[in-house]
Amino acid sequence: MAVVYLDNNATTRVDRQVVEAMLPFFTESFGNASSTHDYGAAVAPALKEARKQVQALLGAEFDHEVVFTSGGTESDTTAIFSAIETSSQRNEIVTSAVEHPAVLNVCQNLERAGRAKVHYIGVSPDGDLDLDAFGAALSDKTALVSIMWANNETGKIFPIVELAKLAKSAGALFHTDAVQAFGKVDMALKDMEVDLLSLSAHKIHGPKGVGALYARKGVKLSPLFRGGKQERGRRAGTENVPGIVGLGAAAERARQTLAEDQARVKSLRDKLESGLLAAVPLTRVNGGGANRLPNTCNIAFDYADGEAVLHKLDRAGVAASSGSACASGSMEPSHVLRALDIPPYALQGAIRFSLSRETTGEDIAKVLATLPEIVANVREKSPLWAEVRPPQVA
Amino acid sequence: MAVVYLDNNATTRVDRQVVEAMLPFFTESFGNASSTHDYGAAVAPALKEARKQVQALLGAEFDHEVVFTSGGTESDTTAIFSAIETSSQRNEIVTSAVEHPAVLNVCQNLERAGRAKVHYIGVSPDGDLDLDAFGAALSDKTALVSIMWANNETGKIFPIVELAKLAKSAGALFHTDAVQAFGKVDMALKDMEVDLLSLSAHKIHGPKGVGALYARKGVKLSPLFRGGKQERGRRAGTENVPGIVGLGAAAERARQTLAEDQARVKSLRDKLESGLLAAVPLTRVNGGGANRLPNTCNIAFDYADGEAVLHKLDRAGVAASSGSACASGSMEPSHVLRALDIPPYALQGAIRFSLSRETTGEDIAKVLATLPEIVANVREKSPLWAEVRPPQVA
Ligand SMILES: Cc1ncc(COP(=O)(O)O)c(C=O)c1O
Ligand SMILES: Cc1ncc(COP(=O)(O)O)c(C=O)c1O
Repeated sequence: MAVVYLDNNATTRVDRQVVEAMLPFFTESFGNASSTHDYGAAVAPALKEARKQVQALLGAEFDHEVVFTSGGTESDTTAIFSAIETSSQRNEIVTSAVEHPAVLNVCQNLERAGRAKVHYIGVSPDGDLDLDAFGAALSDKTALVSIMWANNETGKIFPIVELAKLAKSAGALFHTDAVQAFGKVDMALKDMEVDLLSLSAHKIHGPKGVGALYARKGVKLSPLFRGGKQERGRRAGTENVPGIVGLGAAAERARQTLAEDQARVKSLRDKLESGLLAAVPLTRVNGGGANRLPNTCNIAFDYADGEAVLHKLDRAGVAASSGSACASGSMEPSHVLRALDIPPYALQGAIRFSLSRETTGEDIAKVLATLPEIVANVREKSPLWAEVRPPQVA
Repeated sequence: MAVVYLDNNATTRVDRQVVEAMLPFFTESFGNASSTHDYGAAVAPALKEARKQVQALLGAEFDHEVVFTSGGTESDTTAIFSAIETSSQRNEIVTSAVEHPAVLNVCQNLERAGRAKVHYIGVSPDGDLDLDAFGAALSDKTALVSIMWANNETGKIFPIVELAKLAKSAGALFHTDAVQAFGKVDMALKDMEVDLLSLSAHKIHGPKGVGALYARKGVKLSPLFRGGKQERGRRAGTENVPGIVGLGAAAERARQTLAEDQARVKSLRDKLESGLLAAVPLTRVNGGGANRLPNTCNIAFDYADGEAVLHKLDRAGVAASSGSACASGSMEPSHVLRALDIPPYALQGAIRFSLSRETTGEDIAKVLATLPEIVANVREKSPLWAEVRPPQVA
């Protein structure tokens, strides 16, 4: 197994402290939170504490604004359906062309069913949202604006404060898919105009299969799951108590060291990025710039077959990705990269490195020591490379 | 904390072996199953094995008929929505009046939205489905029949083989909520005409927050979650690998000892039931009879306030329930008990004992030793009891 794991935007290792926090809720405090006896009563405070821990990392005003779900996909789906169901006079959605499939596919499905009209706002060559097109798409028919806080493939951060403000002044609900941003950027929802926000535990060293939907106090939710009265009637189903406790513990752990982790991870990422740009000719950063998650670097090696590079990297003990986990393995450049202005001979050579607070300086040194030769070897197999390679790498 | 846990229909203690099976997937094999590198590849066989373990306990023909979900509520919701979405010419649902809220509330919501017409079939005083009404409700407009395999409050088992056959001959899809039956009764789906079936891990000593929807090969699913291509495009979202592994391990463990557990649990349940009927006057079994889960006993003590009995039981170290966990604490008799022919002076005194393979003879002895006195004490507080009590308990 690769020893250097640089695919943290796909998923992260669960922190040992998080597992420790979860364990008692499998075999000891295993009650159903809805039960009235002691076994039920014992888990209620744990759910409450987890809710407060997530609230704290979100900078939200009330803990009951946090609704626990099974993950980012469920949160995204609930937010979008709910907005359409509760906005009787409005049926348009404004979103971006670079959202995660968990947002895009729900929108497309609503479109196909004739239940919504969707505007997909494009991005600049560097990945910034087209703010003119965004403003033009907003109207008194807009039910929902759904724009991700940070992109999973490039790390690009969108101006959520301003976008939320624009959405609200058009009378629309504002949702943000913050699955990649939660725990990596500072959040102060109580000072923002975000109505709905999706997050997922497994991206922040918490367990898979649990997440949350933040719904600002006063925002009406139309539940996706109707059944028992869990989560104040907003999400039926027996609560995943160990998972929720794990999400809370992961959020708490992330909050405690957020500032120092951001700085340390960013410095490692920058070292990786500048090192690769210096060592490998004809290399470019996709959707780069300052407004980026500190942990993400999407980089393209012109004329190199990215899948071949990844495969050799994996053999050399380094796990990275060609795009999002859902799209990888498909050999098609992702919709995110296609939305940027990347020449065709670079598109296939794009690789995403995503770091975490567990990443070390040695990890980065190992990539810098192995990747340049791997890229050179792979490029040798490209028929175009012989024609274009710069003289200094002949 | 109560030491005797007899609320296993609400939820169960996770088996230690199940937790052991899950642990490596938090901190070691923590990859995203969709990733192409070693970390992703390492989890695919674990998902495959869990799918086969669930398949085996279902007696299903193909492992890919098992779609992993976040639990029983999600499976029920998906099944019902999917049936309505994929049946363009038909829009009626036939279900029972005693389903779990995860079925009833989805049906009611579809009804309110004008998307379906729903027939709620009643039950006899003893809890048996009204087969005449069932037959009469079926027509060429029936899109879906959704009838639970076993009731969570009474344990009553419905004749699923026959009901599925009737549904299929009317050209409808047949779904069964088997959340309580899975792992407690023998299942051979490959020999039945069930199209869709819901199950949940936490009812069989597996983890909360994970379950499955069985969808017979050839049955078209309209996914509730659209996003990544997980579960063959039938359920988007990063797979809850530890949870799925836990569900598989719990299913495997249940399958290995199913026959002996059934016999042992039934004998304990029968001992509890006959012991209480003998020791406590004016006591009745609700929805009893032979066609019942081996672990469930719903019993009513006339003129006793059930909540008070439960509270004293809890203090005495015995956890039981007044109905389903979702309804308990509400002080209202559940919709299931109201559907039976129970006199009002008995309704409030209904208590559900639900055993598991962890239940011991001492547990039952403890209930038999403490409950009669508790009931007598509580009855003393009832103004009616003085008038009606039989002379022998004066
Ligand atoms: C931006 C974004 N949104 C949504 C998701 C889906 O989250 P989950 O896998 O928890 O369903 C992911 C990751 O998979 C993501 O990166
Ligand atoms: C019959 C029945 N159906 C559905 C459910 C819901 O399952 P879950 O809590 O896993 O969502 C339950 C239990 O809560 C149940 O007993």
